[in-house]
Amino acid sequence: MKKLLIANRGEVACRIIRSAREMGIATVAVYSEADAAALHVEMADEAREIGPARASDSYLKTETILTVATETGADAIHPGYGFLSENADFAEAVLAAGLTWVGPAPETIRLMGDKQSARRTAEAAGVPVVPGSPRFAPGALKGVEEAGHAVGYPLLVKAASGGGGIGMRQVDGPEALTKTAAMVQEAAVKSFGDGDIYLERYLPRARHVEVQVFGFGDGTAIHLHERDCSLQRRFQKVIEEAPAPGLPEATRDAMGNAALSLCAEVSYSGAGTVEFILDAATGEFFFLEMNTRIQVEHPVTEMVTGRDLVAMQLELARTGDVKDRSAPGTDGWSIECRLYAENPAKKFFPSPGKLTRFDTPAPRPDLRIETGFRVGDTVSPYYDPLIAKIVTHGSDRTAAITRAVTALRETKAEGIVTNREFLIACLASEGFAAGDVHTRFIDDHGAALLEVAAAETESVG
Amino acid sequence: MKKLLIANRGEVACRIIRSAREMGIATVAVYSEADAAALHVEMADEAREIGPARASDSYLKTETILTVATETGADAIHPGYGFLSENADFAEAVLAAGLTWVGPAPETIRLMGDKQSARRTAEAAGVPVVPGSPRFAPGALKGVEEAGHAVGYPLLVKAASGGGGIGMRQVDGPEALTKTAAMVQEAAVKSFGDGDIYLERYLPRARHVEVQVFGFGDGTAIHLHERDCSLQRRFQKVIEEAPAPGLPEATRDAMGNAALSLCAEVSYSGAGTVEFILDAATGEFFFLEMNTRIQVEHPVTEMVTGRDLVAMQLELARTGDVKDRSAPGTDGWSIECRLYAENPAKKFFPSPGKLTRFDTPAPRPDLRIETGFRVGDTVSPYYDPLIAKIVTHGSDRTAAITRAVTALRETKAEGIVTNREFLIACLASEGFAAGDVHTRFIDDHGAALLEVAAAETESVG
Repeated sequence: MKKLLIANRGEVACRIIRSAREMGIATVAVYSEADAAALHVEMADEAREIGPARASDSYLKTETILTVATETGADAIHPGYGFLSENADFAEAVLAAGLTWVGPAPETIRLMGDKQSARRTAEAAGVPVVPGSPRFAPGALKGVEEAGHAVGYPLLVKAASGGGGIGMRQVDGPEALTKTAAMVQEAAVKSFGDGDIYLERYLPRARHVEVQVFGFGDGTAIHLHERDCSLQRRFQKVIEEAPAPGLPEATRDAMGNAALSLCAEVSYSGAGTVEFILDAATGEFFFLEMNTRIQVEHPVTEMVTGRDLVAMQLELARTGDVKDRSAPGTDGWSIECRLYAENPAKKFFPSPGKLTRFDTPAPRPDLRIETGFRVGDTVSPYYDPLIAKIVTHGSDRTAAITRAVTALRETKAEGIVTNREFLIACLASEGFAAGDVHTRFIDDHGAALLEVAAAETESVG
Repeated sequence: MKKLLIANRGEVACRIIRSAREMGIATVAVYSEADAAALHVEMADEAREIGPARASDSYLKTETILTVATETGADAIHPGYGFLSENADFAEAVLAAGLTWVGPAPETIRLMGDKQSARRTAEAAGVPVVPGSPRFAPGALKGVEEAGHAVGYPLLVKAASGGGGIGMRQVDGPEALTKTAAMVQEAAVKSFGDGDIYLERYLPRARHVEVQVFGFGDGTAIHLHERDCSLQRRFQKVIEEAPAPGLPEATRDAMGNAALSLCAEVSYSGAGTVEFILDAATGEFFFLEMNTRIQVEHPVTEMVTGRDLVAMQLELARTGDVKDRSAPGTDGWSIECRLYAENPAKKFFPSPGKLTRFDTPAPRPDLRIETGFRVGDTVSPYYDPLIAKIVTHGSDRTAAITRAVTALRETKAEGIVTNREFLIACLASEGFAAGDVHTRFIDDHGAALLEVAAAETESVG
């Protein structure tokens, strides 16, 4: 591998270029018309335009990207995250073109990309999945009480054709099950023309905890411990950390081992993330999905383990192996805050525009900022409004949080509205400080957080 | 200690504020008229003007600074480096005012501040000093050959009244000694009206290696290993690193032990640096001086040891002790480059002015930048033209150097001329890469370095 094309943009493209450069690998950036002056274009050794602003016209153009690779003499492609990173067809096309694909085998991407086959694979590997029942057709509720018992309470009665929270009801105990099941069936017939339902265990105070894995493609793998990504807003992670706070050692070990079992099952190759949903009350955890690429929040893992995951990806792709196969321990705590161009006071509506000011704190070893923007750059409405990931490290969680607040206060973006003060409000909240994180945290505390954020705006300006 | 006054400016003031803030200590900045809009003023909780731009009218005004401390309710003073940091009278005045002095005892500052008493103290502690002879008056050269033998060759015949390189001659062996000694005496009588001379050992390829120490004030101390600061221009350090390259383990240990002996001799309290001159050829080293304050280049030590020296200073001053008294090991390598507002092509003449652009690389754990400037700030002609210290870390020396070059290339200052390209030329030179550093390095390679720097300017712009 002598020349790497990065089929991505923004902070992750810049981050990949950095590791490639340290390894003496030349880099080729691709960019849409909207990104002609972007930082990743400046940082790469070469850059080629690949089409109009819309991702479907540029960053998702498989053929154009492969043509650029050929024309520039690139011999490998790193897809970053998002865009084509979990597109098995693209991975196959890259390999068919005789190029190195920095990622797992296409068949693994395909297997894990489908919810059903991923769940089956997890089950085959002995990894716990969220307990569920077979389907029950209208008028055929025989056995539903036994199924309810097997699934466990509280549970959700879900319409098979429903989704996004529609066509489901919570049931807290066996007495209400049959009646509720019939009700959901009736409503589902009306709404979807399909009355089939199934039962699924409901986790009221669920946490999102994920394990970073790295497979060597020969059936062996290591894990680099877990991250807690419970602080979400509409399934979008907002603050992530490593390790997960308050996790009993036994749970942590079991989760790491489950992730490794899944890796072994598919002979996983490269960096990946096994996501779990964790019942904070009982410590039970269940497989959610596996992401077969580098993750947005990978820096918190790098901060506590001292490993460079992108460099490991590139090493494996270049040499077929990784010299240091040891499983690292963790040191201290790390927090990542996602700074978005969005207006929390206006339902977090994106706030694209020109960054007329963009001060970031002076570099120091306990701080890492990943960004694709410089002052004067424009945050485009075409892409994810993530401006920067602000990552801090501390000897313990409190130290990491304190440093995150300081780093956010020292970060000054003007010309656009950001969620900076909202992030500070989250970090400063009692619940967060106590490690009482769960996926409904922002929903539960939204109003109070917005109030604190507004006060922060006034005092800090 | 609840409120700390920082009697300094620029990057070191900002750096002290950072550690104080992490420890929950409020901060008071002082500033000259020229520094009214400076970063250290913005960062501190409170700030007071103390006079006109010239340091003698502001940062050196003992009385004014003490008055500000009283008026703001500060209960401690950190002097930083330079200015009043090694002024024993100031330290005494601070203590007399009932305030905490963040530094060693005034008598230690005084003892080490005088070259003669420092040398005597080192000798008493069994620390090697540069071999020298008693004086010889004109016409009284009896015993000079024995003295020459005792001092060792090559040696310098130095006029007692000379200095700054004037009135001295190098002698490579005993045959030329008596004749040269008489010559220097004759010239000295003419030049200084004083014909006394003495002999001193000459180290042709000397390196400047210093040991960071931390004393607990009870006769015990630890050392935090050495730094190599050989790359100098007119006695001004330009690039520093830790550890010192190519130093045999035995020399390193001996140097550390010598530094600890000196600390024990004076019951040293707080952070200090014992500077040695090292004969690269023989491995012999000799005591040069001890700096009784935090050193400009202390970050390289922090990068390889993981300790926060300023936090240790504040802890000792606040509680009378330091909880973690353990002597740290070192991890990897660290390099510091001093970015100056100066023009290498014009004999390094200072280049004050307004920073119309000042981009620094995005924060990452292997990078630390200490600066007192933001874009739009003016580099004043009144103070040291140091703009930023760019400090990198790597698993080995090569990695640290590569990262330093990258970080310098990512640092873009406009509106003033800087030594950025000259620093890159030094880092990229064969001699530096080989670890062949000595105090005449820049003198020896000056022309070639300036040429490489000019080429770098053209290519990078």
